[in-house]
Amino acid sequence: MQVISNTTPAASPIRGIQHTTLAGSNQGLKQLSIWQQVIDPGCATPPHSHECEEVAMCTAGSGELLFGDGKKLEFGANQTVIIPAHALHQIVNSGDQPMHAVAVFGKTPVAVYLPDGQPLDLPWAT
Amino acid sequence: MQVISNTTPAASPIRGIQHTTLAGSNQGLKQLSIWQQVIDPGCATPPHSHECEEVAMCTAGSGELLFGDGKKLEFGANQTVIIPAHALHQIVNSGDQPMHAVAVFGKTPVAVYLPDGQPLDLPWAT
Repeated sequence: MQVISNTTPAASPIRGIQHTTLAGSNQGLKQLSIWQQVIDPGCATPPHSHECEEVAMCTAGSGELLFGDGKKLEFGANQTVIIPAHALHQIVNSGDQPMHAVAVFGKTPVAVYLPDGQPLDLPWAT
Repeated sequence: MQVISNTTPAASPIRGIQHTTLAGSNQGLKQLSIWQQVIDPGCATPPHSHECEEVAMCTAGSGELLFGDGKKLEFGANQTVIIPAHALHQIVNSGDQPMHAVAVFGKTPVAVYLPDGQPLDLPWAT
């Protein structure tokens, strides 16, 4: 059992993405990883997939979830995005305000893969 | 892939606990369940355990995590509580404001057990 004081998302090497890992393998977890991110307007994650499910809760701003062959779902504050395991996707801040989200993963650490199947080495503890 | 509009936590049969399930097995998830709850001042969860990890992010108010043989950890807004699988615990709102939290579980549906090992049949979809 432990109580952790959340750290504020801070600039990462991925342009326009501020990140903090609220909890994950570094905190002794074996099943869950939880990230908090802010994506600046006009910025995006790389297209990628995970070997586990992701649920992202948007708390402010808005964005688009791109997937499949040109498919798109829009989301905003107080909406929750469900991404199945192994599903290629990209999250874009298409709005004019910072997009804030808490993302939950069903494994820890979280393995991330680029569209060509190569692992993406993330610049934060997952 | 789907986007869900969050529902606001609503009164449950457990006194002083407002609950909504943001995502879980009913939304097609296989690894994760995510709940949002408000616990009124002076109210508490029953003492219980899960067969999976729980991570609870407190977004407003404050509370106490009771566990083990009389152990206690205090938490408040912008703090995250980590509860290992199978660990008996109780969350109490010991403050004078409603305590808001988002709780994430590493399985779905979430099996919950009372201290005597009997399953607790929760009054919401987990």
